[in-house]
Amino acid sequence: MQNNDKNNAASANKIKIALLGLGTVGSGVMRVFGENGDVMAFRTGATIEIKTVLVRDAAKKRDFIEDNVVVTENIEDILKDEEIKIVVEMIGGINPALDYMTRALKAKKSVVTANKDVLAEHGGELLQLAEENGVDFFFEASVGGGIPIILPLRKSLSANRVTEIMGIVNGTTNYMLTKMTEEGASFETALKEAQDLGYAEADPTADVDGLDAARKAVILASLAFNTKVSLKDVDTKGIRKIKPLDIEYARELGYVIKLLAVGRESDKGIELAVHPVFLPKGHPLAAVNGVFNAIFVRGNAIGEAMFYGQGAGSLPTASAVAADIVEVGRDIVNGTLGSWHGNPLTEKKICPTKETESGYYVRLLVDDKPGVLGLIATAFGNSSVSLKSVMQTKRSIPEHAEIVAITHRVTHKFMESALDRLKNLTVVDEIKNVIRVEN
Amino acid sequence: MQNNDKNNAASANKIKIALLGLGTVGSGVMRVFGENGDVMAFRTGATIEIKTVLVRDAAKKRDFIEDNVVVTENIEDILKDEEIKIVVEMIGGINPALDYMTRALKAKKSVVTANKDVLAEHGGELLQLAEENGVDFFFEASVGGGIPIILPLRKSLSANRVTEIMGIVNGTTNYMLTKMTEEGASFETALKEAQDLGYAEADPTADVDGLDAARKAVILASLAFNTKVSLKDVDTKGIRKIKPLDIEYARELGYVIKLLAVGRESDKGIELAVHPVFLPKGHPLAAVNGVFNAIFVRGNAIGEAMFYGQGAGSLPTASAVAADIVEVGRDIVNGTLGSWHGNPLTEKKICPTKETESGYYVRLLVDDKPGVLGLIATAFGNSSVSLKSVMQTKRSIPEHAEIVAITHRVTHKFMESALDRLKNLTVVDEIKNVIRVEN
Repeated sequence: MQNNDKNNAASANKIKIALLGLGTVGSGVMRVFGENGDVMAFRTGATIEIKTVLVRDAAKKRDFIEDNVVVTENIEDILKDEEIKIVVEMIGGINPALDYMTRALKAKKSVVTANKDVLAEHGGELLQLAEENGVDFFFEASVGGGIPIILPLRKSLSANRVTEIMGIVNGTTNYMLTKMTEEGASFETALKEAQDLGYAEADPTADVDGLDAARKAVILASLAFNTKVSLKDVDTKGIRKIKPLDIEYARELGYVIKLLAVGRESDKGIELAVHPVFLPKGHPLAAVNGVFNAIFVRGNAIGEAMFYGQGAGSLPTASAVAADIVEVGRDIVNGTLGSWHGNPLTEKKICPTKETESGYYVRLLVDDKPGVLGLIATAFGNSSVSLKSVMQTKRSIPEHAEIVAITHRVTHKFMESALDRLKNLTVVDEIKNVIRVEN
Repeated sequence: MQNNDKNNAASANKIKIALLGLGTVGSGVMRVFGENGDVMAFRTGATIEIKTVLVRDAAKKRDFIEDNVVVTENIEDILKDEEIKIVVEMIGGINPALDYMTRALKAKKSVVTANKDVLAEHGGELLQLAEENGVDFFFEASVGGGIPIILPLRKSLSANRVTEIMGIVNGTTNYMLTKMTEEGASFETALKEAQDLGYAEADPTADVDGLDAARKAVILASLAFNTKVSLKDVDTKGIRKIKPLDIEYARELGYVIKLLAVGRESDKGIELAVHPVFLPKGHPLAAVNGVFNAIFVRGNAIGEAMFYGQGAGSLPTASAVAADIVEVGRDIVNGTLGSWHGNPLTEKKICPTKETESGYYVRLLVDDKPGVLGLIATAFGNSSVSLKSVMQTKRSIPEHAEIVAITHRVTHKFMESALDRLKNLTVVDEIKNVIRVEN
């Protein structure tokens, strides 16, 4: 450590912190401190001590808490404690987490959080507040659980212009899609299993409808493209409509279906979406199965890179939280608190969905009579959507056939016009599904 | 940035650096500065300017160098230049690179290098020298080209005890094994193709015999386990002995063969090796094909994580070098030069190969007569090696059969004793191959 910081170092030999919340992540952090505290101290250059924890019910028995730790139900005990330099928020949800973090930063305490909800909706304000108060605000655990992605985006890719970021960032839906792919399970069966295993909430909406992934898309995109984006900018679709048949066709055609959080920057602006996608079997993300997460990044220098790991769970998430705590600790030791707040986020144009480009998979239920394929191909053609492949397949209902079409890359608005034409064809009974295809 | 560094920042508004070497990586760094210099400046908080480049032949025409850049053949022009704060070494090889870096550090200039040879053999000394002189010494590009792995190991995993690190860190051999797997190509054909494509040197020894990977294993292990290790500690095997038949058996049994750099820490000590391994098809590393690299890490908190990307190439490698330059730049701006040197590397026991544990694949050429299988199974059993599966297969030579055995996890010394017994069996004509199996 450089000389001019000797004093800071000395004064920082013991750094006291507070944990807000002792749920899955909070107890994981406790455990990491117990098992790896020595390593963390070694790497920080100071001992980090959990002084106080905030819980809902202080009376509840918790054997894993050491006697010297103060357990309180009152946030003031933490905010008013000058000794506490780092507040670690693991309550989740917007309130009261946002309020606590805001006040902690104003009290010139550094904040570490795993809270994707707050980050997605108030990340910018909190970063600014941290800057104004000369403290750190880190959030590695808010995306991809234990997977290092925030720090690599901030530092390892600092000499890149990121053009694309695609992530499997929701373990529940990836577990479900894996089940549906490997065992032909239906959406309902896969959901039931996920719930029985505790991967999915009783109300699975946030997961299966893509909202959780959308929040992470906002966090990733704002860092990758250094711009202000918000949830409303994310074109969000979930996996409820995915049928085993779609997965079967995907396999036959050499694809797997994954729910992706997608961010792209082009001259059309920033494209932000969460939707199921046909991924070629050879794509690095295609092999990411079960509850694992991965984030794929394309930069103009690095080319393709991918970060893979456990996207949830007590210890993996705690690993990311604890790494952030060590980072703040080093900044305290080095006297560099608040030296990173990214760059002022710039306003950038959002690319409207109708202007985005992609290949498409379209599954139609049609009358089983000669000439149908021709009518359908013509409908696509008249909307200037060129087809890569069309197949007329397994009869599901008597007198009916299914047609599966894969289009070349096309602007979304043309696809919409093609779908309108198809709806108006008397031979088309139903448009069963439309899914984007990545190539 | 915090107030007490305002002055540093002011004085650091333009940071001048020197590049040593303008080969593949050096010209890539030039290009990254040209295309992404603005982003880098933004993220550094200062402009970084390439003032001087060291080349072998200054007279040679180089259109991509701007006029204000000094091109010299004399290292003194750089070492004696007080204005130059960062020396970026991209010459490769031990000498003169080591000498130049040593002198740069002694001249209190920070050093960024992509040099795995020097790192593997002198990394410790250089880190110490950097610490003594209060400057930075970064080397992200020395392993895995553009893949962020050094920084994540240093920071993102700071709250973990790493127990295992396994890497596909040599693009040439991975390209060759992919060809052999996908096209049934022989070692010789795959090597020829790799050479024609410029992936392999005219003398491919360093790649195909595992030496390049061994150097990277040393760098990864010393960071992951925070210990002094050297090349001689690495049990190094290459891929020359891998036959299409081995790859075919691997496929039949649900594995792929990859050349892995492996580091493990257990109560037996540090295990360090480079060897071909049977990897289950489902393992994240199994899907890493062609010239791509990936590093798989297991930590006691994070669980499994993997870092994937382009392990070589001008721009990807330059991306890592340039990110290190930005990091040094930020340290200059923040007044925190030399604030990281990892921890003093501790001496740890090296686990001798005979004590390491693994499953094994054994392919034998035997006499084609009844009772052979029994004799062989007994030989394994007598050395207390238990078999997971044995198959007697395709006749290669008349009167002969091949036997392929997969063992359960066993200590290497027992495996050696089993191989001795097998050699002494008259029915065993030849032990064709022995490859480790990861489970």
